[in-house]
Formats: sequence, C-alpha cells, structure tokens
Amino acid sequence: MDVSSIKNPSFIKDLSNQELEQLSSEIRKFLIETCSITGGHIGANLGVVELTLSLHKHFNSPIDKIIWDVGHQSYIHKILTGRGHEFNSLRQYKGLCGFPKTKESRHDVWEAGHSSTSLSAAMGMAKARDILGNTNHVVPVIGDGALTGGMALEALNHIGHDKTNLTIILNDNEMSIAPNVGAMHNMFGRIRTNHNYNRFKFDAESFMNRLPGGDRLRVSADKIKDSLKYLVVDGIFFEELGIKYIGPVDGHNFKELDEAINTSKQINKPVLIHVVTKKGKGYKPAEVDTIGTWHGLGPYKLETGEVIKGNEEGPAWSALMSNQVLEYAKQDKRVVAITPAMPVGSKLTKFQQELPDQFFDVGIAEQHAVTMAAGLATQGMKPYVAIYSTFMQRAYDQLLHDVDRQNLNVLFGVDRAGLVGADGETHQGVFDVGFLSQFPNFTIMMPKDGNEAIDMVNTAFKTDHGPMAIRYPRGNAPMLRDTKEHEILDIGTWTYERKGSNLSLISYGPTVNFISDIADELLKEGINVNVINARFIKPMDFEMLHELGKESMPIITIEESMLTGGLGSQIATFLKDHDYKNVLRRIGIDNEYIEHGDVDLLLEDIGISKAKIKSLAKSLIK
Amino acid sequence: MDVSSIKNPSFIKDLSNQELEQLSSEIRKFLIETCSITGGHIGANLGVVELTLSLHKHFNSPIDKIIWDVGHQSYIHKILTGRGHEFNSLRQYKGLCGFPKTKESRHDVWEAGHSSTSLSAAMGMAKARDILGNTNHVVPVIGDGALTGGMALEALNHIGHDKTNLTIILNDNEMSIAPNVGAMHNMFGRIRTNHNYNRFKFDAESFMNRLPGGDRLRVSADKIKDSLKYLVVDGIFFEELGIKYIGPVDGHNFKELDEAINTSKQINKPVLIHVVTKKGKGYKPAEVDTIGTWHGLGPYKLETGEVIKGNEEGPAWSALMSNQVLEYAKQDKRVVAITPAMPVGSKLTKFQQELPDQFFDVGIAEQHAVTMAAGLATQGMKPYVAIYSTFMQRAYDQLLHDVDRQNLNVLFGVDRAGLVGADGETHQGVFDVGFLSQFPNFTIMMPKDGNEAIDMVNTAFKTDHGPMAIRYPRGNAPMLRDTKEHEILDIGTWTYERKGSNLSLISYGPTVNFISDIADELLKEGINVNVINARFIKPMDFEMLHELGKESMPIITIEESMLTGGLGSQIATFLKDHDYKNVLRRIGIDNEYIEHGDVDLLLEDIGISKAKIKSLAKSLIK
Repeated sequence: MDVSSIKNPSFIKDLSNQELEQLSSEIRKFLIETCSITGGHIGANLGVVELTLSLHKHFNSPIDKIIWDVGHQSYIHKILTGRGHEFNSLRQYKGLCGFPKTKESRHDVWEAGHSSTSLSAAMGMAKARDILGNTNHVVPVIGDGALTGGMALEALNHIGHDKTNLTIILNDNEMSIAPNVGAMHNMFGRIRTNHNYNRFKFDAESFMNRLPGGDRLRVSADKIKDSLKYLVVDGIFFEELGIKYIGPVDGHNFKELDEAINTSKQINKPVLIHVVTKKGKGYKPAEVDTIGTWHGLGPYKLETGEVIKGNEEGPAWSALMSNQVLEYAKQDKRVVAITPAMPVGSKLTKFQQELPDQFFDVGIAEQHAVTMAAGLATQGMKPYVAIYSTFMQRAYDQLLHDVDRQNLNVLFGVDRAGLVGADGETHQGVFDVGFLSQFPNFTIMMPKDGNEAIDMVNTAFKTDHGPMAIRYPRGNAPMLRDTKEHEILDIGTWTYERKGSNLSLISYGPTVNFISDIADELLKEGINVNVINARFIKPMDFEMLHELGKESMPIITIEESMLTGGLGSQIATFLKDHDYKNVLRRIGIDNEYIEHGDVDLLLEDIGISKAKIKSLAKSLIK
Repeated sequence: MDVSSIKNPSFIKDLSNQELEQLSSEIRKFLIETCSITGGHIGANLGVVELTLSLHKHFNSPIDKIIWDVGHQSYIHKILTGRGHEFNSLRQYKGLCGFPKTKESRHDVWEAGHSSTSLSAAMGMAKARDILGNTNHVVPVIGDGALTGGMALEALNHIGHDKTNLTIILNDNEMSIAPNVGAMHNMFGRIRTNHNYNRFKFDAESFMNRLPGGDRLRVSADKIKDSLKYLVVDGIFFEELGIKYIGPVDGHNFKELDEAINTSKQINKPVLIHVVTKKGKGYKPAEVDTIGTWHGLGPYKLETGEVIKGNEEGPAWSALMSNQVLEYAKQDKRVVAITPAMPVGSKLTKFQQELPDQFFDVGIAEQHAVTMAAGLATQGMKPYVAIYSTFMQRAYDQLLHDVDRQNLNVLFGVDRAGLVGADGETHQGVFDVGFLSQFPNFTIMMPKDGNEAIDMVNTAFKTDHGPMAIRYPRGNAPMLRDTKEHEILDIGTWTYERKGSNLSLISYGPTVNFISDIADELLKEGINVNVINARFIKPMDFEMLHELGKESMPIITIEESMLTGGLGSQIATFLKDHDYKNVLRRIGIDNEYIEHGDVDLLLEDIGISKAKIKSLAKSLIK
C-alpha cells in the first residue's frame, strides 16, 4: 500500500499479523527512502516499526494516550496518524516536525525533544483519568537510555508507590544515542542474555507447589515465592519498586507483542513491558552501526548509506574543542572529559579511545554529569564537560548550587549554542546566556572562530578562574589564523574587529564575522562602524563599555539568543546604570520559541539578516 | 566532657564503645540545649549522633572524604571538627552556617543545602582519587528521602556500572523532611519489617551447600545463589545495580556499625550500608513527631519542646495560599495540589486531609513534580505546584521544556521567594525572577499582601492563561483589606499605590509596603514620589512604563532578587528600547551569594534600607 495515503490508524485493528508484517516492510521502505533525502532519526524509527503498529492495534489513540519519550522515534506514529504525505517536508522550515507536535495531530498528546519526560507526563495523565472517572489507557514508550535519566527514575518511584494503572513500554534497543552505559544497562543485558523471550507467563505459584522440601528452607512461603519470582521473572528491579514486569519480548514479533499487551491489560496496576528491539532494523548501514552514527543524521545515499557531506570548510566545532582538550589531557592527567551520552555528537570518541581512564560517558544523566564534575574539581582535577546548550538546561541547579556557588574550576563546552536547525524548538541553544549570566562566578565565552576557541580552552586550563563556559555552535569552525601560539585571554576583555565613528555593532561567536561583512558593505556606502567582538559575554568589558558610553554613538547588539537576559539586555542595564545616552537596539529572539528549519531562514525571521541590520544601522545614524 | 571544647576528631579512635555512648549522650544534651535557643535542624542531627561518631572513628577525615547529603545533619560533624564553641551563633548573621561550609573547616569537603548531590560528588572524588593514585575512602551519607531525588539515582546507575570503591551510607530514618513516600520507601520498609538487623554476614554460598535437592530446581547453581541472595540479603535492588548491599544495621548501636563498616572496608567496590536511625532520638518531642514539624524549626522551650512563636500578625503566606487553593479544589476536582516532599513547609496538610485524592506528595522529586503537573494539565486539569523558589531551580528544564513550551495551565506557588534568613546561601529564593522571565509563556506575579494573593489565585484559576507563578516570601501575610470579593486581575497591569511628581519607586511583593513607608517619610521632607506595585513581574505593564517614560522622572527599582535578570533590568531594557531618558537606579543583589542571617541585616547589606533608599532618592531629584 501507499503508506503516505494512510489517514488514521483504525484500519490496523483489522489486519492479520502477516498483513502487519507486510505493512512493516512498506513503512521501512518509505522511511529509508524519505530520510535519505531529508535526514532524520532513522535508526530509532526503524527499530520501532512493529512496536508502533502493535500499540496502535491494541490501544485506541488518542483516547488512549501513547506518549513517546524523547519523541524522535515517532515517525511511524506520524505516518499512521495521517502525516505520511508530509514527510518530504520533515524537519524543514514550516514543514513536519521531527518530534511529536500537538498542533500537528490530536494523536500527539505530549510534546518532547528532551529525554526521560514520558513517565512523569504519563503519571499526570493517569491521575487525571482517575480523578475525572475515565477508563482510558496511558502508554508511555521509553528507551532503556532515557530510563536512566533522573526524572524517569523519580517517576518510577512514584508510580510504583501509587499503583495506578499504567502500561509502560520499555523499548530496549541496547543503545540510547550512543551505546548505553550504566548499571541498569548491564542489568537489561543480563536479562537479554540469560533468558529466552516470552517467559512472562510463567506461574511462580504453581511452580512452587511442585517444589520438594520447600519447608526445609525454614523461610516463609511468601519468601520462597518472592525468591522464585527472581528465579523466573527477570524484572526484580521493577518488581521491587512495585511495578509488574512483563518480558522480555521480541519487539519485532507481533505475536509476542500481542501476548504481552493482552496480559498487561488484565492487570489493573502499573505494568512495564520489556520490549527488545533492534535499532536500524531493516537497513543494513543502520543495523551494523555500533557507535551511534545512525542515531540522527542528514541525507545519505540510499544504496550504500554513505552520508552526503556538506561543503563546509574547517573542522567541526565539537571536534576542534574535544581534540584541543585532549591535548591538555595528554599532558596533565587532572584534565578529564565527561559527556552525558553524547560521545559521538560531542566528537569525544578519539578522547575516549586514547585516554579511557580520563573519560566518562555517564549516560543520559546531565545532573550527575555536572555534579560529578564538581566533585572532581574539589580534588584539584580539571574536568571538561561537553554538553549541548539545550541539555545543559537539565542541570540548572547543579550548575548553580554545586558548581557556581562553590566556585569550582569546571570547564563547560556548551555545544549547539544558538539555533540548531532541523531539530527545532526543543533543541535551540538560546537560554544558556541568560541563565548563566545570573550566576555570580561563571565566566561565559564564545569564540568567533576556531583560533579563538583554542585560546579560550588555553585560558580555561591555564587560569584557575572558577566555572567557565565556552559556547560554540553546530557546524564547522572557520580557522582564520595559522598560528601555533596559544594565548591566554584577559578575562572580561572584548576586541575591536575594526574601529568606526558612526555606530557600534556588538556580537559574539561566529556572528562577529557576519557583522564584519555587514560593516564592509556599510563602508562602501560611507558608513564607518565599530565592530566589537564581545568574546566574554560575562564578565563584560566594562572599560570598553565606558568608552562606548562616552563616545555616545548608537549601538546595535546582535545575538542568536533570547533577548531577555541576553548580552544586549546586560549592555542596556550598564548604560542605564551609568546614565549613558547611547541609542541602543537589540536584535535576537523576542519572547518566542523558534521552530525547526534552515538556520538562515530562522535568522532572517528574527532579524539577523544583512538587509535588516544595514537598514537599522542607517536609520540610527540618519 | 565539654563537647564545645573538642578540637578535632582524632581522640574518638581511642574511645571504647561505652565511652562513645557516653559522648553521644553529652552531644545530644548539647544539641538539644543549643538548638532550643538558635533553632535548627535538630531532628535530623539527633538521629545521626552515633553514626557520625562511628564514621569519624573508622575513617580519617579529611583525607577520607565524608560527604553530607543535604548537609543539615552535619552538626555533630561540626562539633567533632572543632566548631562546638561557635554553636551559639548557629544560623545567625556572620555566625556558624547550618550546612557544611568549606571555608569553616577543611573537614567540610563538600557544600550542600539541596538534596541528592552527595553520590555524584562522591563519584567525582573517587575518580579523582583513582586517577591521582590515592587510596583514601569516599563516604557519602545520604538519607532515604534524598535517595529518591533523580540525580542520586542517576549516580547509582553510574556507580554500579563503574565499580570504583565507594562507601555509601544510606541513613534510613523513615522520614526525609515529611514522612517519606514512594516505592523505594516501601521497599526499605519491607526490609526493616521483615528482618532482624545484622544479617549482612550471612554466607549465601554455605547456605546453598546445605540445601537438599537443589539440583531438582533445574536451574543453574548461579541462579540459585542469586536467588538465595534475595532470600537472605534484602538489598537486591542495589545488588541488581551492581552495588554491594550491607544491612540493615542499627544506627544507634556502635557494635553493629563497627561490624558493617569493617566489612565494607574489605570490599574494593561500591558498597551501600543500610543504617536505620531514629530521627529526633533522645528528645521526646522530636521523637514522637510523625509529620515533620521537628525537621527544621526555630527556638523552642527546652522542657516541653513547645515552639516559641514570633509575634507576627496575619496568616503564614504558605497557609494562605494552600488554603485558598483548597477552596477551589473543593468546588472543582480538576484542581489538584502537588508538593515535592514539603506538605508541612508548604502548609498543605489540611489539603491532604480533606482532599486526599486530589493531593500528591511525590517525595524529593522536583523534576517529576513539575512534569507530572504538565501531564495533568494536558488533560484539562488545573494543577497547583507548591514549591520553594530555591528548589524550583531543580526543575528548570521541566518548567521550560515541558510546561512553558507547551503553554500549559499550571499554577506554581513559589514559596520562600526572596531572602530566607537562617538557611542561607543555598536556600535564598533570588534566581526565579530571572530565569522565569526568559520563558516566553510564563506569567510571574508577586502579591504585596494576602488580599492580593487571593486575587492572584483567583486570576489563575479563572483564566486559562498558561503557566503562572505566584511568588511569596517566608513569614506572614499582611491582610490589608477586609473583603469577600475575589477580583480577576488584568494580566500585565501594575498599580499606583500613590501618585507623585518627583520620582518613581517600583517594587513587587511585600516590599511595596516597605517603599510606601519610605514614600511617607519622603513626603514629610517635601518629596512626592510615585509608588508602583509591579504585581506582574512578567508581563510588565507596558502602558504604565510608557507613561513613566514620557514623564521622564527618575526611577528606582527595589527587589529582593538578583539584579541580573531582575525586574529592574527588564525596565532598563524597556527604557533603552524606546529611547526614554529616565535616570534609573536598581537596588537588589549584585552578582553575589547572600549568606545566612537575619533578613533585615541582609537587606541592609544589599541596600534595601530606608536610609539608603531615601538618600538615593534625594540624590536623584537634587
């Protein structure tokens, strides 16, 4: 069938398992072809084709609430709920979102992009059902990686205690984004290795009745029963928390899924079905991926799976940063690197291979990553935490209460700072400038190019100056100078990229190069502007700010961040505090969320375009 | 002995258990007497007297790292490390801190005030030890309540996987702050109830060898052994995570503690010792507390335990808010209340008693609390989350990614907003204005008095206006009007408390009444000022701001919040954006942490004093 013509999932209930298998093949073919052009989280989706079909067969969406943790594995759900025909716009400007989106469909009952939210959301929906007297099912689908996120574990603790009806699907694909780490991962591995699937029907009680000499164990029957449960049911970890465990079941076998879900429906309390799936199933290049390359990626060649490279020059920002830190770590064993499940995205695999003892992938556990770094720093270590700006939000209090308040020497590589493009709203790195600026001890930097990034890493490791953040965007770093020297930057100093007499443009990061280009164009029109590289977002260069205040020229700040709390707002308060009269205009994100799409189009929308900035500049100098 | 004369803990190693028991009594007497005058977290400390002595006997602080989770139970540790003579200044301005403080003592190796950080910190310290080639012990002490915080569970998952040497002390006193909730709590309860203490020496292997017919179970010997472990060792939950479990042991019995710690020292991998203690032990009024009143409190009468009340008028802010929400919940079952382990502090016990089905205490799990509220709101419910400002920090991304981004109708009662006094640095509620202001959809309010608080609750429940926060301070609410009518406030409107012609004073919350008093005093000197109640911190009253801009009078903003990101900074950007020339001065907390002490003294320090504000006002109008 033409899967892009599916209108809603009701037809699935009438299909035989053989027909469902046929449909699975067609969906896989559709996904592999479509994503080869659009890019996307292909690996995760190929792993849940049968699972998604089975969920829509056994539950009635949207009355029953299917909640996709993280959300990037919801492509099949989107196809089944009538959005297949929009897949050519996947993750593109004004196109289909790569994550669940309530405005796209009433079947999307929960939006996510960050991990580990589904169980708490499900608990809320289940209690709402109970209080309002409804009888629907609530079905969160959470990966084994996401389950180690602190919030998911907090939720398990509450769910097991509360005992309301919930059907948790544990999608265990042995990988989250990168290969999983952690004790729970090891536990799931033991279960998968030691047992055949489909053991959930084992009846502990009848087994016990057949036991010889059970009384001689001199323990109560209940104790034996509990113990036997451990012998035959593997989910003792969940059972201890008060959650009924069913599994493991083969997530690519409709019959096993049928049995497990039907069994779960007989139980009016929290149930966890342990479903084992294979990430990338059905597409060889994704199936054989062992490091997580196929988690999420851009367009690829259909036949070979070869990723189609862009034509950007320079090293990836992530690689530049990670390799630079590696150089220091080789010389000084106090330098260690920590990543919360992002060794590939943060380009730390080389570090991991070369210095495994100084490298820690802690899994999806941003809070732990940050506070562990704080613990390391108390002992004179120099930890480097590579973390995406958007995921850094998940460790806000750890940054504040543990790192900043104790003024510890932890260096943060704040990756994907600014707009990220295709991943969209949930992933934009636009809040960190604001929240880090509130913290008394943090130094916040952003390099305009790769050379400056190297100087900043050097500055961080050569000074003991408390917590420091080096922000860098997605993409590739321009290398503008050919130098072997690493400078130590004066903390809290900005630089003039050029001096002018009509107006000042202030920015940070690669946007500085962008405004330099604007300055070139303005010069041709006889307008001579200051271009200022505010490489330290905090502390600001107060000396230069006083100069600017005294010169009284208009100022335009340009930043790929929220205006509220941004550098422009800090400059506004400085000018007001000192009664400087400069006209100030701030360009950035004005109290709204920015959806997915090509970064250049998004920048245009928020006013970071050459035409708009030139026009504004001209209007200010008249 | 005079416990206040103890200089360091080394003498403990030479004491017999009988002498340690004697010392325990003396310490208890000292604590009960001292805290009756100073107030403090007496209950938690009385529970860990023997445990603290035992830890300092068996470990060599500060070479061995003893890490106090939360930190409010470190009084005995402070006494043993030479700070007993400072206890008369406990929690007072410039006095001894109620939490570990590295600047007080080299024995305080980690600062905390928020829960659940110790395991991550310990992991950092342990890995530092391993990498630097040291051999010291690392000993985090964590309560059963704190263990359910997400970060602690993230840490367990990493610790069990990594297998480095750590000695985790689980201090199980059956209460965190309020009585514990959650599945893990139930699990610990089963362990305590079903078993005698001191079973940790049981040898599973020899037990198995004595079993008849074990082979007939047709499972491998290893499986039996694992299973027997479950029969005789209770910590299967931890063992499943790769952490060796020892216990439960009586935390008031030195011999049992000796055995457990000595056993743990034989094991070169992560060990958890489950220590059962009694909160408040040795002081009857604290021992019999079942709801958490004796967790942390002010001065009390030594003989009876009767708490000495202050002479403040009006209801406690927390009670006012919680009871108001209760009124709506009685009429509308969609209104539910959620607290992360603070039913007493947030005065929700009445709500809990009257509407148990609409009340959720989720334990120390701020992330889950907030996202569960979001889940409820997706189903048309109207959740109220009562949460201290400082603990709200722990759910930053849940507020942003789950609640604000989805624009859900969740009402937050942001308790202890502003300076909190005795708890100090880790507990000041001074960051929320800044970080919530960055979120596009949040409405932030703060009432000047109890009547306005009632109107704000009404406004929240009568409008469906997305996420809303009502901030309120510690202490009691002035009730300035006697009215039965509940208004619906126009969102984003401020009020003139009085109109003047020389200068504008702008503030929010009860500080508005304080600046009204200042205005009275200025009027006597012939200075006539606007007093503006910025009851909506976000959105601001742009219409009024334009008026103020056009009138061009100087403006002073006064706020008990960080200046960076505060209301004053938002006003500065507004004025700059619109080229208004008003002189603006902002009073608040300038890029520093504020330690513990009497709030009036702290306010004086940051410039919120009548004298300073009057002087500033006069200087601006010349």
